[in-house]
Amino acid sequence: MLPPLPDLVLEPIVRLALAEDLGRAGDVTSDAVIAPDARGRFAVRARQAGVIAGLDAAGLSAWFVDPDMQIEAQIGDGVRVEQSGTVLEIEGLARSILTAERTMLNFIGRLSGVATLSRTYVDAIAGTGAEIAATRKTTPGLRALEKRAVVLGGARPHRYGLDDAILIKDNHIAAAGSVSIALQRAQASLGHMMVIEVEVDSLAQLEEALPFAPHAILLDNFSLKDLAAAVRLGKGHAILEASGGVNLQTVRAIAETGVDMISVGALTHSAPALDVGLDAL
Amino acid sequence: MLPPLPDLVLEPIVRLALAEDLGRAGDVTSDAVIAPDARGRFAVRARQAGVIAGLDAAGLSAWFVDPDMQIEAQIGDGVRVEQSGTVLEIEGLARSILTAERTMLNFIGRLSGVATLSRTYVDAIAGTGAEIAATRKTTPGLRALEKRAVVLGGARPHRYGLDDAILIKDNHIAAAGSVSIALQRAQASLGHMMVIEVEVDSLAQLEEALPFAPHAILLDNFSLKDLAAAVRLGKGHAILEASGGVNLQTVRAIAETGVDMISVGALTHSAPALDVGLDAL
Amino acid sequence: MLPPLPDLVLEPIVRLALAEDLGRAGDVTSDAVIAPDARGRFAVRARQAGVIAGLDAAGLSAWFVDPDMQIEAQIGDGVRVEQSGTVLEIEGLARSILTAERTMLNFIGRLSGVATLSRTYVDAIAGTGAEIAATRKTTPGLRALEKRAVVLGGARPHRYGLDDAILIKDNHIAAAGSVSIALQRAQASLGHMMVIEVEVDSLAQLEEALPFAPHAILLDNFSLKDLAAAVRLGKGHAILEASGGVNLQTVRAIAETGVDMISVGALTHSAPALDVGLDAL
Amino acid sequence: MLPPLPDLVLEPIVRLALAEDLGRAGDVTSDAVIAPDARGRFAVRARQAGVIAGLDAAGLSAWFVDPDMQIEAQIGDGVRVEQSGTVLEIEGLARSILTAERTMLNFIGRLSGVATLSRTYVDAIAGTGAEIAATRKTTPGLRALEKRAVVLGGARPHRYGLDDAILIKDNHIAAAGSVSIALQRAQASLGHMMVIEVEVDSLAQLEEALPFAPHAILLDNFSLKDLAAAVRLGKGHAILEASGGVNLQTVRAIAETGVDMISVGALTHSAPALDVGLDAL
Amino acid sequence: MLPPLPDLVLEPIVRLALAEDLGRAGDVTSDAVIAPDARGRFAVRARQAGVIAGLDAAGLSAWFVDPDMQIEAQIGDGVRVEQSGTVLEIEGLARSILTAERTMLNFIGRLSGVATLSRTYVDAIAGTGAEIAATRKTTPGLRALEKRAVVLGGARPHRYGLDDAILIKDNHIAAAGSVSIALQRAQASLGHMMVIEVEVDSLAQLEEALPFAPHAILLDNFSLKDLAAAVRLGKGHAILEASGGVNLQTVRAIAETGVDMISVGALTHSAPALDVGLDAL
Amino acid sequence: MLPPLPDLVLEPIVRLALAEDLGRAGDVTSDAVIAPDARGRFAVRARQAGVIAGLDAAGLSAWFVDPDMQIEAQIGDGVRVEQSGTVLEIEGLARSILTAERTMLNFIGRLSGVATLSRTYVDAIAGTGAEIAATRKTTPGLRALEKRAVVLGGARPHRYGLDDAILIKDNHIAAAGSVSIALQRAQASLGHMMVIEVEVDSLAQLEEALPFAPHAILLDNFSLKDLAAAVRLGKGHAILEASGGVNLQTVRAIAETGVDMISVGALTHSAPALDVGLDAL
Repeated sequence: MLPPLPDLVLEPIVRLALAEDLGRAGDVTSDAVIAPDARGRFAVRARQAGVIAGLDAAGLSAWFVDPDMQIEAQIGDGVRVEQSGTVLEIEGLARSILTAERTMLNFIGRLSGVATLSRTYVDAIAGTGAEIAATRKTTPGLRALEKRAVVLGGARPHRYGLDDAILIKDNHIAAAGSVSIALQRAQASLGHMMVIEVEVDSLAQLEEALPFAPHAILLDNFSLKDLAAAVRLGKGHAILEASGGVNLQTVRAIAETGVDMISVGALTHSAPALDVGLDAL
Repeated sequence: MLPPLPDLVLEPIVRLALAEDLGRAGDVTSDAVIAPDARGRFAVRARQAGVIAGLDAAGLSAWFVDPDMQIEAQIGDGVRVEQSGTVLEIEGLARSILTAERTMLNFIGRLSGVATLSRTYVDAIAGTGAEIAATRKTTPGLRALEKRAVVLGGARPHRYGLDDAILIKDNHIAAAGSVSIALQRAQASLGHMMVIEVEVDSLAQLEEALPFAPHAILLDNFSLKDLAAAVRLGKGHAILEASGGVNLQTVRAIAETGVDMISVGALTHSAPALDVGLDAL
Repeated sequence: MLPPLPDLVLEPIVRLALAEDLGRAGDVTSDAVIAPDARGRFAVRARQAGVIAGLDAAGLSAWFVDPDMQIEAQIGDGVRVEQSGTVLEIEGLARSILTAERTMLNFIGRLSGVATLSRTYVDAIAGTGAEIAATRKTTPGLRALEKRAVVLGGARPHRYGLDDAILIKDNHIAAAGSVSIALQRAQASLGHMMVIEVEVDSLAQLEEALPFAPHAILLDNFSLKDLAAAVRLGKGHAILEASGGVNLQTVRAIAETGVDMISVGALTHSAPALDVGLDAL
Repeated sequence: MLPPLPDLVLEPIVRLALAEDLGRAGDVTSDAVIAPDARGRFAVRARQAGVIAGLDAAGLSAWFVDPDMQIEAQIGDGVRVEQSGTVLEIEGLARSILTAERTMLNFIGRLSGVATLSRTYVDAIAGTGAEIAATRKTTPGLRALEKRAVVLGGARPHRYGLDDAILIKDNHIAAAGSVSIALQRAQASLGHMMVIEVEVDSLAQLEEALPFAPHAILLDNFSLKDLAAAVRLGKGHAILEASGGVNLQTVRAIAETGVDMISVGALTHSAPALDVGLDAL
Repeated sequence: MLPPLPDLVLEPIVRLALAEDLGRAGDVTSDAVIAPDARGRFAVRARQAGVIAGLDAAGLSAWFVDPDMQIEAQIGDGVRVEQSGTVLEIEGLARSILTAERTMLNFIGRLSGVATLSRTYVDAIAGTGAEIAATRKTTPGLRALEKRAVVLGGARPHRYGLDDAILIKDNHIAAAGSVSIALQRAQASLGHMMVIEVEVDSLAQLEEALPFAPHAILLDNFSLKDLAAAVRLGKGHAILEASGGVNLQTVRAIAETGVDMISVGALTHSAPALDVGLDAL
Repeated sequence: MLPPLPDLVLEPIVRLALAEDLGRAGDVTSDAVIAPDARGRFAVRARQAGVIAGLDAAGLSAWFVDPDMQIEAQIGDGVRVEQSGTVLEIEGLARSILTAERTMLNFIGRLSGVATLSRTYVDAIAGTGAEIAATRKTTPGLRALEKRAVVLGGARPHRYGLDDAILIKDNHIAAAGSVSIALQRAQASLGHMMVIEVEVDSLAQLEEALPFAPHAILLDNFSLKDLAAAVRLGKGHAILEASGGVNLQTVRAIAETGVDMISVGALTHSAPALDVGLDAL
C-alpha cells in the first residue's frame, strides 16, 4: 500500500491553497450565517466513478482549518469509487467544515482525476507487458502529489525533477553536437546511484546510443514500424520508452510493439477533475 | 489590456514550481552535457491553436533561473495563437534556458488551456447577452493565475476567495434553517463594500430570496424551463447566474433563457493544457 | 458573535512577532532566574477601560511558545472591560508564561486600542443613522487583525486591500482625465461580484458621478454645507461616505448631515494602545 | 548618520504589508482606470511637521512593486520636516506608484510618528543629562523598524528582544524568591558580552540590588522623592532608569531627579501616525 | 540546567534539514520495504564518549516526521555519555523512526561534537580562572544551536550576531583611522544595554584603548609574553580575551598568563562529529 | 567544470545564515565606526592550502547584503589554493563588505574543508580504480552544498536524500525479515529511473543478495579479507561499496581489495574548516 506523502512535503501547497481561499477575512459567509457552535456531519461523495487520490492533502487542509474535525476515509487512496460512492465522512463544527470544503474538494478532484486517467491508460494496455509512465508536465506546485496520483492509478512516476536522473533530450544533443558526445559527457559526470536515459529521434540515433549502454532510451515520435524495429535492436539492452502521439486510441498498438514503457504527458497536464461534492448527512 | 499579476502574487507558486524541479542538485543533465558558455536562441511555439496566458509566470520563472535570459513575447497574454505560432523567443545561456524550459512550459500550457476553454465557452454564447464566469474550483496554489487566465479568455472571474463576497450555498441555508434566515444574517454582518449572492434550488426559494434584494442569485441545476421562469421573476432585480450541468452542448440554450451569468467549474478544473513546446532557433 | 480569524491568517504576523522577541537565544532572563518546573498562574488585566480585541493573536502566540499553557478568556473579544478588569487567565510553566507575556500584551494592547477608539467614534454618532468605517491606513502586517478590531468596536471594515473593490481616488481621476472616463473604464472591467466607489472633491464631481450609479461615493474634505447638499443630491442613489477632517469633535456634525458612512483613518493609524499588564495570581 | 536597516531585516514585514494589500488580484482600480504606459511624478508630503523615519521600508516596498520606480529622498531619515514639506519624490509608471502608495505611506506615517514622539520627549528633558529610551512595547512585526525610529528621534533603543540582555522584572523576582537570588542566578549564567538590569519597586529593593553591581537598575513607579533618594544611593554605581507614569507632563521632573534613563512605552505603543500624503506633481 | 531552545528558533533549520532529506517522494526505501503498521523500538547510542547536545533539534525533527513517536531521553543535554551509552530511546512506527533517523543523528552528532570539544578545552584550562568562549565562526544556519552546544560544554557563547554587541576588529580600526577614533565613534552610538569590545594587535594599541574603558579587549595573536604584559596593564579594567593560535597544546599556557577569556573558533568550525548510531531494541 | 548550484537552491540557507548574523539591528559595529561612503578593497585569502568550495554561497551572501559589491574570484571552485593564496577580491562600501565578511568566510571555510578532505581521501587511493563517496551524514541545511563540495574534491555524491534511490540498510532488513524479502519488496515498487542498493553485513548476506541483481551492494564493516572475498563473488555483478572503519590510515588497503566505491561519512560530518580570512588591500 502506497503510504501518504509526508506532511512536510504537502504543507507548502496546502498552505498556499488555503491562504488563497481564506484571504484576509476568512469565510465571511459561514461566519455570518452559521451559528458558532453548530455541528454537522457531511460526506464527500463521487459524482462519477474513478480512482481516488489526494486524501492526504485534503486531510491536511482540514487539519489546518480546524484540528478538531474528525475525518473518516471510507475508501483508500488508489481505490476505485463508483458513482455516488462515499469517499470520506467529516464531523465537526459546521463553520469549519464549510470553510475547508472547497480546498479539500479541489485536491481530491484534481488528484483523483490524475489517478483515474492513469488507470484508464494502464487498463488500455493490460496484458502487453508494457507500463505507463508520467512526465514532468505536471501542475506547478503539485509535482509530488501528481506523481503519487499517477502511481495510485497503476502507472510509473518517471523522474521527479531535473536532479534525480539524467535525461538527455533533443536540445541537449543539439547543444552537445551528437548523441555520442552527450552520452560520453553524461557518463563522465554520473554519480553511482544515478541513471541515464537518452532521447533518440531515429533508428540511426538509437544505434549510436546503444553501445554506451544507457539505462533507458526514449524513442520519441517513432512510427509503430520504427518502434518495432527499435525493440528488435534494443530490447533487453536498455529500457525502451515510447513517447509522442500517445492517446487512448493509439496506446495499445504502441504497447504491442514490445516497448517497455510509454510516457504520457496528458496524465498530469490534461486530466479532467473527478467530480466530487460535499453532502450533508 | 489586462496587466500581468504583480510579481509578489506570482512568486510563491513560481518558487514552488522551480524548487520541485531543481531539487537539490539542479539540472544535472544540462550541467553534464552542455558547455557552460554555450548560448542558444529558442522559441516557445504552440503545437495547437488557442488563447495564450501565463507569460507573466513563465517570465518570472526564467528570471529566477537566470536574470540574464532575454525574453521577447511575440504575442500578448489573451491573444489567440495559431498552430505553430511563436509565443515568445528566449536568448541566453543554453544551460539556463533548458533548466527553465519545463517550468515555463507548464505555466503557459496550463494557463493557456484555461484561457482557451474560457474563450470557447464565451464564443459559444456570443450574442446572447449572457456572460461566462469561473468558480472557486481552481487548482490549489494557482487561484490568482487561473482567474486571470479566465479573464484573458473573455470570461468573468467571480469570487477570488471565501472573503471577498458572501455566497450563501445550499449547505449554509440548511445550517441556517431557511433562505430568509440566511439572508437576514448575511445582511446584518455585511460590510458596505461587499455584496451578497444566494444559491437557490427552486423557484420557491427564488421567490423567498427576491424580497431581500441580494446582489446576485445563483440558480443551481435549474431546468431550462425553470431558468426561463426565474428570468421572468428576477431579471433586473438581481444578477441571475445559472450553474450546474453546463457544458459546451448545453451552454447556449442556457444563455438564451436570459440569465445574466453562467458559471462553469470546468474552465479551471478540467481544461486540457494547450500543447506548447520549445524549439531551437 | 464575530469569530476569531483563522490561525492561518494570524500565523505570519504571530511568528514574526515572536521571532523578533526570541531572537537567537530565547528568554535568557527567565531561563536564568526561574526554575524549569516552576509553575504560575497569572492574569492579564486592563489598566484602563476599553473594548477588548486581539485574544486570537495572543492565544496563538502563547500556543507557539508552549502548547501546554492553559488560557481562559474572562471576557470575549469585542466586550468592554472596566479598569482593573481581568481579560484572561493563564496557567502553566512560569518560564513559558513570562516568555510569551510581551508578545501577548502587545497584540491585546494595540488591537484593543483600535477597538476602543472605534467604539468611541461609533458612540459619538449614536442615533444619527450613519456608520463609522476604517480605511487602509493600517499598521503594516496587521491589516486583517486591525480590520477585525474595528468591527469588534462596532464600525465597518471597508476595503481589505487593493483587490476586493474598486475605489477611484483623486490621483486615478487625474490620470484618467475625468470622473466620467474613470468610471466608464472601471465599469467595463468590473467583475460581477465587485463594487465601485468613486471619490469626489466637489459637488460638480458628484453630479458627474451620479449618472454612472456607482455603488458608493466618497465625499472627500467636503464642508458640512456641501455634505448636506451632497446628501440631497445623492442619498439613496449611492452609499455616501464622508472623509477628511474627521475627529471626535467634528464627527457628530458630519453624521448629522445625513451621510451613510464616515471613514476615519485614525481608527487604525493613531489609536493609542489600551494599557494591559500581567499580574501574578 | 544612522544607516538604513539591511533589506533582509526589512523584507519580511515589507512582504507581509504588500501581500495584504495586493491580495490575489492586485490593484484592480489602477489597472482598470490608468493606461498601462502612463507615467507620473508624485511627491510624498508631510501634512504636519515631524521627524521622518521609514524611508528604508518605503523604498523597499516600492522596489518590490516595480524596481524601475525612481525615488529621490528630499529629506533624510531622522530629519525634521515642516508642514507641507516634501519627503520624497517618485517618478515612474502611474499604475506602479499608485499601487505602492498606501504601503509606502503606512510605513512612513507610522515610523515618523514614532520618531516624532521620541523627539518630543527628548526635547522635553533637554539639558538635564538624562536620556529617553524605548521599551519592548512595540508593534508586532515592527520591532527593528520602531527601535530605529526611536533612535532617529534621538532616544535610545533599549533591549531589542528577550535574548540580548538580562532584564529581571517583578515577576521574575517573585518566581525566584528575592532580588538577591534572582541576581545571583543571572550572574551565574551570564555571557561575558551581555549585561544585567534589574527592576526594583522600592528603595529597599534598590539597596538589596546594589551590592551585586548590576549594569543597570530600573526604578519602576518610584515617586519623585524616591527617585531622588535612589539617585543619591546608586548614581555612578549602575545606570539608573526610571519607568512608570511617564508622560510629557511628568517627564522633565523625573529627569531632573538625576536618573540616567527614562523609558517610555508610549514612544512605540501609542505614537499617533505622522500625517503624510501623496500629491501629483 | 540550560533549557532547550524555543521551537520557533529551531524550526527553520529543522524544516530545512528534513526537507532536504525527504525531497519530493519521502523515504522510498522504508515505504517499499517495511509494513505500514510495523512498530519498533530503537536506541540512539554513542559510539564514542562525549558530551551530548542537540536533543531539542532531534526531538523536533522526530515530531515533524510523526508526532506520535515516543522519545525518552536517557541522558540530558550537556551530560557526558560513555562509549556505547544510550542517549535516547524511540518507540513508534518503524517507517517513521527510520525516516527521521538520519536527521536526528546529524543534529545530535554535530552538536554533541561541538559540546564535546568545548568541554575538552574547558577541562584543559581547569583551575586557571580563565574561561573558553566561542566565536561567530559557526555553521551557516546553526548559530543558535552551536552557541547552545558550546554552553552545554561549559564554555561561553560570546556574541550571537553582528547586532548584540560592538566588536571593533582590525579592519574597523583601519577604516576608522585609529583605535581611539573607532572607540569614540562606538561609544557615541552605543545603547545603554550594549557593550563594546575592541581588538588590539599590540601592547601599544592596548594602551591606546584602555583609557576609553571598553567592556572587553581582544588580544589578537599576542605572544605569551605580551599576553602577560597585557594582563599587568589591563586586568580588572576590562575583560581580557586572548585569541589566535589557540589549540589544545597552547591553550593552558595562554590561560596561565591571567587572561579572562580565550576564544576558540575551532569549537564550532572544526569540531568532529560525535559518532552516534541507531540500534534496534 | 562543475557549475554553481542554482540560486534558488542556495537561497534558503544563505538567508538563514545572514539573518542569524544580522539579527534585528544589523552590523552595529560597522555602522558606528565606519563612514557611510567609505569604500574598500579586500581579499579573501587562504591561511592554509586546500581545495576551494563555497564561492557560490559566498557570492549570494554578498549579493543579499549589497548587490553593488564587486567580487572577482581569483581561483575557481574545485581548484587547489596554496597557503596565503588569494581566493577572491571584493570591492565596495567598507560597511557592506565587513557586514558580509563572516557569513562569506563561514561558507567558504566549511565547504572548502569538505572539498579538501575529499581530495585527501581521493588522493590516498589514487591508482586503485576505486572511488570515494560521501554519505547522508551532512550538516543539517547544507546537504546540497556539501555534496557539491565533495564532488569538487573529486569524490562522488551518493544519494542526495531519502527519495532519489533505494538503500536498504540493516534496520530495513530486520524489519522486513531478510535480505531477500526486502529486495523483493523494493523491486516491486521501483520506478524505472531509480536504482537499488542493499547493505550486507556478511558474505552470507552478500550471497543472498546477488541473485536479485541489485544496482549496488554496501559491504558494511567487512574485514579486508572479507572485502576481498566479496570482490571475488560480486565484482561486475553489482557496484561494490565498502563502508565502516574508513580513515586515512585504512582507506588505501580497502581500495586495494578491489571494491568500486568507499563511502566516508567524515567527508561531511568531521571535516575541519579550511582557514580563510579577509585582508584589506
